[in-house]
Amino acid sequence: MTASDREVPVPDLRTRLQRAGEILRGRDVGALLVGPSPDLFWLSGYRAPALERLTLLLVPARGHAVLLVPELEAPRAQTSGVGDVAELVVWGESEDPIVRVRALLAARGLQDGRLAVQDRLWAVFLLRMQETLPAARWVSGAPITRALRIRKSTEEIAALAAAAAAIDRVHARVPDLLRPGRTEAAVGRDISDAILAEHDEVNFVIVASGPNGASPHHETGSRTLAAGDAVVVDIGGTRDGYCSDMTRNYVLGAVPDGYQEVHDLVEAAQRAGVQSVRPGVTAEQVDRASRRVIEDAGYGALFTHRTGHGIGVEEHEDPYLVDGNVEPLEPGMAFSVEPGVYLPGRYGARIEDIVVVTGDGARRLNQLDRDLVRVSA
Amino acid sequence: MTASDREVPVPDLRTRLQRAGEILRGRDVGALLVGPSPDLFWLSGYRAPALERLTLLLVPARGHAVLLVPELEAPRAQTSGVGDVAELVVWGESEDPIVRVRALLAARGLQDGRLAVQDRLWAVFLLRMQETLPAARWVSGAPITRALRIRKSTEEIAALAAAAAAIDRVHARVPDLLRPGRTEAAVGRDISDAILAEHDEVNFVIVASGPNGASPHHETGSRTLAAGDAVVVDIGGTRDGYCSDMTRNYVLGAVPDGYQEVHDLVEAAQRAGVQSVRPGVTAEQVDRASRRVIEDAGYGALFTHRTGHGIGVEEHEDPYLVDGNVEPLEPGMAFSVEPGVYLPGRYGARIEDIVVVTGDGARRLNQLDRDLVRVSA
Repeated sequence: MTASDREVPVPDLRTRLQRAGEILRGRDVGALLVGPSPDLFWLSGYRAPALERLTLLLVPARGHAVLLVPELEAPRAQTSGVGDVAELVVWGESEDPIVRVRALLAARGLQDGRLAVQDRLWAVFLLRMQETLPAARWVSGAPITRALRIRKSTEEIAALAAAAAAIDRVHARVPDLLRPGRTEAAVGRDISDAILAEHDEVNFVIVASGPNGASPHHETGSRTLAAGDAVVVDIGGTRDGYCSDMTRNYVLGAVPDGYQEVHDLVEAAQRAGVQSVRPGVTAEQVDRASRRVIEDAGYGALFTHRTGHGIGVEEHEDPYLVDGNVEPLEPGMAFSVEPGVYLPGRYGARIEDIVVVTGDGARRLNQLDRDLVRVSA
Repeated sequence: MTASDREVPVPDLRTRLQRAGEILRGRDVGALLVGPSPDLFWLSGYRAPALERLTLLLVPARGHAVLLVPELEAPRAQTSGVGDVAELVVWGESEDPIVRVRALLAARGLQDGRLAVQDRLWAVFLLRMQETLPAARWVSGAPITRALRIRKSTEEIAALAAAAAAIDRVHARVPDLLRPGRTEAAVGRDISDAILAEHDEVNFVIVASGPNGASPHHETGSRTLAAGDAVVVDIGGTRDGYCSDMTRNYVLGAVPDGYQEVHDLVEAAQRAGVQSVRPGVTAEQVDRASRRVIEDAGYGALFTHRTGHGIGVEEHEDPYLVDGNVEPLEPGMAFSVEPGVYLPGRYGARIEDIVVVTGDGARRLNQLDRDLVRVSA
C-alpha cells in the first residue's frame, strides 16, 4: 500500500509557514534559509534531493516564501505542489544560484540583517553566501525549526501512531524470518520487503546477531545466524511522511547464558523511562530514570548511548533524551525510549518504543509485547 | 555478487592523505575538515552516516589525520579499518564535539589559521565551529578535494569500467521488463533487483514513460505503461565504491510520431560530444559540441540541462560539462555525456554513456549499443 492509496491528512503548510514568520519576527531574524532537508519537507511538502545544484526555501519574516530551484528540478518541484505555498524561482543551468539568493534577499532588504540557516544546508553553499553577503549575520536555524516542529499536532500524532502500528506488524513477522543458517543480510532483505509492504520507504534495518548485537549501530552483514544467538532487530520506515522506529530482541533456540537477566534488566529500564515521562519532567530526567535501573544492577558502563531521540518526519530529531538536556517535556513531544546493554564479544539487548507526552504522562505508540521472543532453532 | 566475493583493489589511502597534506601546504591551509561524504570515503575508506552526531576527519597540512567519531559509531568506524590511516578520537554521548574539534586544532596550532571545509559538512556544525574558533578563516575545501579526485588513477578507471559493464548488463535486461499494463514503479523495482545483482548498491532508478519522459529527473511513479510509449530509463549503482550511470530509450510497440527523429538527433549529439573529448579541450566545449547538434536542428530550447557530470565514488562530481566551465580536460577525468531533448506533454529522449579522457581522445566505458530499443507490445 502506498500513500496514494490511503486517505492521507494534508498538513496545513500555510499555517506552518505563517508560524515560521511569527517566530522569525519574535527573534529579529530576517529570513530562514532551508536547503533540502526534513525541515524543507515539513514546511513546504517538497522532498527535494540534496544535490550539488542548490535548492533553497527562503522563508522571510514578512511576506511570502520563495523556493529557488534548479531548472532541472523544476518539474519535480511543481509536481509536489510546493507552488501552492511558495513562489517558485527557477535558476538556469549556467547561472550562479548564489547570485540569485543575494538578489532575492536584497529585494526584501534582508542583505545585511540576521539570517538563519537550516541545520543541514551544505557548507559549500553557506560559505558562498557568507562571501557574497558580507554584511549579513548568520545564525543557526535550529531554534526556529525546533520551536516549529517539537510539539506534534493531533494529525501528526495520528500519523506517528499509524507508522508505529505498521512497524508493530513488521516485528510480529520477524520470528518467521529468523533461522539458523540464514545470513543477517538475507533476513534484512526480507524485513525490508515487509517494511515496504507497510510503509512508503525503508529507513534502516539493523539485524545484529550474536556478538554483533553488542554494537548498537551494527551494519547488517554477512554473519550467519546460529542456534543460541541473541538477535537485536532495530527497524524503521516512513509512512505518509512520518517515521517508525522500534527495537525488539529475539533468541534462536536456547537462551544464551545470562541473556534473560540482561533482557529483563533492559525491559525494566525501558519501563522506568516511559513511566517517568510527563509534562515538566526534563529530557535528561527520563534518561536518568532509565539509566539508573541499569546502573543499579552494575551494568551502567555497558549502556553506551542516550536513552532516546525525538521522531517525526525525521528518524532522529529534537528532543534528545540525553544527560545535559534540561528542557522540560511538553504535551505533543514524541520520542523513543530505548535503553540497551551491550556485552562486547557476547551479545546485546535493546528495547525501543515510541511514546508521546500527554497532558499527564506518556502514551506508547507501539503496542507489541516487549518480552524476549524465543524462536525455535 | 557482493564486494566481499570479488577481488577488490584496495586504494592506497595513505598516499591519498599524503597528497592532501601536500596540497594543503601549497595553499597555506592548516587543515581540511571533512564530514560524512564521498570525500571522507575517498580519503579514509570509511562510509560514515550523516547524522546529528558529528563525525569529522581532520587532515592537517602536517602530521597524521584524526577521525573524531561519536561513541556510538566507534565500532562501525573500527570495523571499516579507518584506524589504519587515521587516529580515532571518540567523543562521549554527553560531550560537545565542537569543543573536541577546537582542542584538536589548538593542539596543532591551527586555531587561528586558514581551515578548509568539505562541501557537504552541515551548516549546523560549520556555524558552531565559526563561533567556537573566531580567529580562524574558513575557506571552501572544494578546490582541494577536487584537485585530489578529478584525475582518476588506473585502479579507479578499472573500477569505473567494471561498474559500467555491470550497468550495461542491466540495460540489456530492461526490454524483458517493459510491458504494457505494468507501472513504472513495478518496472523500477525489477530494475533495482537487477542493479543489486550486479552492484553493491542501487543509486537511483528513473523509469520515465510517455509524457513523463519529458521531465529529466522524473520520479518513477504510478503511471501504467501503454503501447506506443517511449520510455527513458536512467539508472545507476555503486560497485566496489565506484558508480555507474547510464541512460537508454525504449519504445513499446509502434514508435510515436516524430520520436525516431528526436532519438536520432540525440544520438548524433551524444556522438558529437564524445568525439570532441580530448586533453586540452574545455568542459564547456564538450557541452557546446553536443548542444550545437540539437540547436542546429531547432531543438535547442528543449535540451534543458548541462551535457554531463563527472563520476567516481560520487554519482555527480567534478568536472561538470556546462556552459561557463572553461577548465581544460586532462587524461584520467571521467564523466557522463548525456544530451537530451524533452517535448513537454509528449515524450523525451536522453542517451548517456560514461567516458574517460585518454592521452589523445576519449574511451567509452559503456559498450552497449545506443540505438532506440523497440520492445513488442
